[in-house]
Amino acid sequence: MFGVERGYLGIMEEQFIPLSNRSVGGIITQGGTMLKTARFPEFQNEDVQKKAYDILKSHSIDHLIVIGGDGSMRGATSLAKLGMSTMTIPCTIDNDMGGTQYTIGFDTALNTVVDAVGRIRDTSNSHERVAIVEVMGRKAGHIALKAGLACGAEIVLVPENPMPLHEVCRHLKETQIRGKEYSVILVAEGAYNSGEVKSYIKDYTEFDPSLTVLGYLQRGGGPSAFDAILAARMSETCIELLMNDTDNRLLGYIDGHIRPISYQEAESLNFPINDKDYTLLSILSS
Amino acid sequence: MFGVERGYLGIMEEQFIPLSNRSVGGIITQGGTMLKTARFPEFQNEDVQKKAYDILKSHSIDHLIVIGGDGSMRGATSLAKLGMSTMTIPCTIDNDMGGTQYTIGFDTALNTVVDAVGRIRDTSNSHERVAIVEVMGRKAGHIALKAGLACGAEIVLVPENPMPLHEVCRHLKETQIRGKEYSVILVAEGAYNSGEVKSYIKDYTEFDPSLTVLGYLQRGGGPSAFDAILAARMSETCIELLMNDTDNRLLGYIDGHIRPISYQEAESLNFPINDKDYTLLSILSS
Amino acid sequence: MFGVERGYLGIMEEQFIPLSNRSVGGIITQGGTMLKTARFPEFQNEDVQKKAYDILKSHSIDHLIVIGGDGSMRGATSLAKLGMSTMTIPCTIDNDMGGTQYTIGFDTALNTVVDAVGRIRDTSNSHERVAIVEVMGRKAGHIALKAGLACGAEIVLVPENPMPLHEVCRHLKETQIRGKEYSVILVAEGAYNSGEVKSYIKDYTEFDPSLTVLGYLQRGGGPSAFDAILAARMSETCIELLMNDTDNRLLGYIDGHIRPISYQEAESLNFPINDKDYTLLSILSS
Amino acid sequence: MFGVERGYLGIMEEQFIPLSNRSVGGIITQGGTMLKTARFPEFQNEDVQKKAYDILKSHSIDHLIVIGGDGSMRGATSLAKLGMSTMTIPCTIDNDMGGTQYTIGFDTALNTVVDAVGRIRDTSNSHERVAIVEVMGRKAGHIALKAGLACGAEIVLVPENPMPLHEVCRHLKETQIRGKEYSVILVAEGAYNSGEVKSYIKDYTEFDPSLTVLGYLQRGGGPSAFDAILAARMSETCIELLMNDTDNRLLGYIDGHIRPISYQEAESLNFPINDKDYTLLSILSS
Repeated sequence: MFGVERGYLGIMEEQFIPLSNRSVGGIITQGGTMLKTARFPEFQNEDVQKKAYDILKSHSIDHLIVIGGDGSMRGATSLAKLGMSTMTIPCTIDNDMGGTQYTIGFDTALNTVVDAVGRIRDTSNSHERVAIVEVMGRKAGHIALKAGLACGAEIVLVPENPMPLHEVCRHLKETQIRGKEYSVILVAEGAYNSGEVKSYIKDYTEFDPSLTVLGYLQRGGGPSAFDAILAARMSETCIELLMNDTDNRLLGYIDGHIRPISYQEAESLNFPINDKDYTLLSILSS
Repeated sequence: MFGVERGYLGIMEEQFIPLSNRSVGGIITQGGTMLKTARFPEFQNEDVQKKAYDILKSHSIDHLIVIGGDGSMRGATSLAKLGMSTMTIPCTIDNDMGGTQYTIGFDTALNTVVDAVGRIRDTSNSHERVAIVEVMGRKAGHIALKAGLACGAEIVLVPENPMPLHEVCRHLKETQIRGKEYSVILVAEGAYNSGEVKSYIKDYTEFDPSLTVLGYLQRGGGPSAFDAILAARMSETCIELLMNDTDNRLLGYIDGHIRPISYQEAESLNFPINDKDYTLLSILSS
Repeated sequence: MFGVERGYLGIMEEQFIPLSNRSVGGIITQGGTMLKTARFPEFQNEDVQKKAYDILKSHSIDHLIVIGGDGSMRGATSLAKLGMSTMTIPCTIDNDMGGTQYTIGFDTALNTVVDAVGRIRDTSNSHERVAIVEVMGRKAGHIALKAGLACGAEIVLVPENPMPLHEVCRHLKETQIRGKEYSVILVAEGAYNSGEVKSYIKDYTEFDPSLTVLGYLQRGGGPSAFDAILAARMSETCIELLMNDTDNRLLGYIDGHIRPISYQEAESLNFPINDKDYTLLSILSS
Repeated sequence: MFGVERGYLGIMEEQFIPLSNRSVGGIITQGGTMLKTARFPEFQNEDVQKKAYDILKSHSIDHLIVIGGDGSMRGATSLAKLGMSTMTIPCTIDNDMGGTQYTIGFDTALNTVVDAVGRIRDTSNSHERVAIVEVMGRKAGHIALKAGLACGAEIVLVPENPMPLHEVCRHLKETQIRGKEYSVILVAEGAYNSGEVKSYIKDYTEFDPSLTVLGYLQRGGGPSAFDAILAARMSETCIELLMNDTDNRLLGYIDGHIRPISYQEAESLNFPINDKDYTLLSILSS
């Protein structure tokens, strides 16, 4: 068994490191990935895919287990078409992947965001200020919405259907009238530029919001219990399936169970943010 | 809407406090319960139940939402038989309740245990010692087993079917021979007296284990994101059901969804620890 | 004994709340301040100071204990000149106050920053990216420099003498050549606009840095052990001094001891960031 | 430069590993020690010391930097008498070392204990129970007393002068009468057997205390900011001194400064727990 460093780029550069059952000793509490990661858009090119396939075969690799998000799964799909036996384990903090209700890393990121917002809330409360917190989520508002529910944010701005900024201002004023002395606004990076949200509120209300941009803070830290356990289970399922000649599947997590989903089905099976969650948030913050 | 302090004891002592939507401001990041809790075994007595029913009615209480574990649900069942409209939200760190795969608090407790064991592992590794960690779980090994998976414990002792101590010693010796310099043993309080496990290992091997008893540490701390969100959703479902004239149900969490389960069904619907988890743990630690 | 809410503004608005020894039950683990805080630049006006003095006297307040930073101490100095008996406890996360080597809150903020940077480093390492983290510090680089030492930041930009950005770029390139795959740059908010640092590096090197702005995150969270203990000791010293007719002092923390410092001396006794720390940081990151 | 694994035992077994400035990359956030540690009482034997000296010389080791507590310093003293050039950096969570007011690790351990007790307090408060927490400290009560101050423990039992258990019971009853619904008792392991404290209280009062034994939990986790910075500074001072031909010193931390102290002086210069802290604790908890 080999680990490939830096994803598909690492295949091209033949960065294969032998793995034994001692190789992962002690990594369970660490953040990041021991295999590194890299952006490699060139892998969308069919010639590159063919080259990667040849390299894998030349190293007598029988199966390739891909750990990542949508882009990684598309790479696996391409290699599968070329004849490679693959399996994809869903792993991205954004939870925005077809074919699964959950991607490993999301729970860890959520807990990090909730802890951070808890600290910001302490200060916002003491200073009676509005706090804007930018979180990840270019296309999907999963982190913003779920973190908003978990930490009692007053307003959440998601990319799918961002509340207009004049409405945000109206909300802030109403909240103040009801006697709530501070508000926390979570902004998914894909909804608005958080700096512009700050400026808009400052220009159109009497509030002067503070701004925190969590950025890469959300990607680090040791895994939550839920993520660590699901990762262990998915690894086991992955090996079991491969040993029973099932391959080229995404390991979806659906209704609390791990389900092998064909890549084709995965692409069309979407789990967008839940309108009920959005309604619940507005009830809780009122 | 009123909160009842100290559970069923609080009904008897009429400790009702009025709740508004401001009452819960800021509690979302806090551990423990603002309503307190109390042991009150006398509530198994039918006369006491009848008295409680009368008190609730004299206060014009239409519905009673019970938050707790098996014992609390049995109390709700008794009141329901007397004619009270009730609903039960499953809430105990032990995850050992009929009618639901999950009880609120379990994820928070798990993360606390995993964090604690991570620190103990640092030391055990440096000192090359065996570490015993006693966790909660009188009847069920959910915390021990899941925490063991999440933190990579070498041995987990659960109440359901505890590994004999001579086998524990054999495992420790084998682990040492394979070159692993330390081991973490999680002991559910219902499996063994952890002090006796320590003595046994000291007597029958050359190891001198350290002992940590996590105790009430596991019950505190602010909720994890998962628990906070599930609590919000269950509260919403609870109110919706009561407003639609469905009552006397446990809100089970089954296959990722909240399901109202009748008290009768809940009592007979058990979700014991999973043998697959136990097998997975032994694979991971080998 | 009364607590004054919202600082000097609260005196003007007579927001006095009676305090007993039960009033502070449970606050020791909480962030923020139960007494709130407010900006009130009007207090620099002598008429306002006089009014505040009169209000305090009309409430039969004998002594005023001020908890805050430089601005708060100046307010105390003004009231002292009018005849009020005051005492100032140094409390600001920035550690930038005359008359003391340490201000309560600094250690807590440092630990928060170090924890945050630890998470960011996980990701920067995995992604092999440069990470920029903006921390507080308008006039003084204490947080940036000490956090840089504690978390092994490669570059720290302080307001006192910020490294030119072209030199930052040179350092990054040298670090890369030496084989270090990622760098963390801490930017005190008073040194540079962190967004501009990001743009500059992107324009003049091949790095594309990530950006995190910690903002109010740094002000929240329960106190560290050091801060909680020092706060308890300073409170005790404060009362002892007042009962022995010593007043109008800042409680400086100097060479590990609490020392009463006259306001006049405090203003001229500065403890700037230490050049040795800056040198040590560059040694450690090389 | 070499690292010696497993302390003095590692010298005897010639476990020397070459260290470069890359060797410590990434360890700053980790608990434990990359050099391991071991008990090796045989090093009190002069023949063994002589053998160690010869081994060091045969490896052309010019200076030995010892990182540890009292026992480690005694070993360094012995080697110094044989002609070895040594330096000792004070490093033990117990803070019970001659010649210094502070030992690296103490602040980290304190914060861990305070965090743990904070969680236990959540539960004790909700359940209205007395909580006993056993902390480290065989000879000295530094951890118990300082943690007690930092987390507002009601009672602290230290080895130096442990409060009699009948007095503990009296305190608990008085506290209850004053309306405080729960109490936290910190027991240093050298003061009492914590299980016996639990039994005594159960036998002689109506309280049924919970028990947590923190054990090795206190030794793990990444360093606090204070510890990380002090370790960096002491390392620097250590090298500077050795390069300037000063050796055979303990790097004491006295009144906020690092001071080289001769081993002889260090042995007789004690900093016991502070009676004022004990008095302050009883004031705060009343």
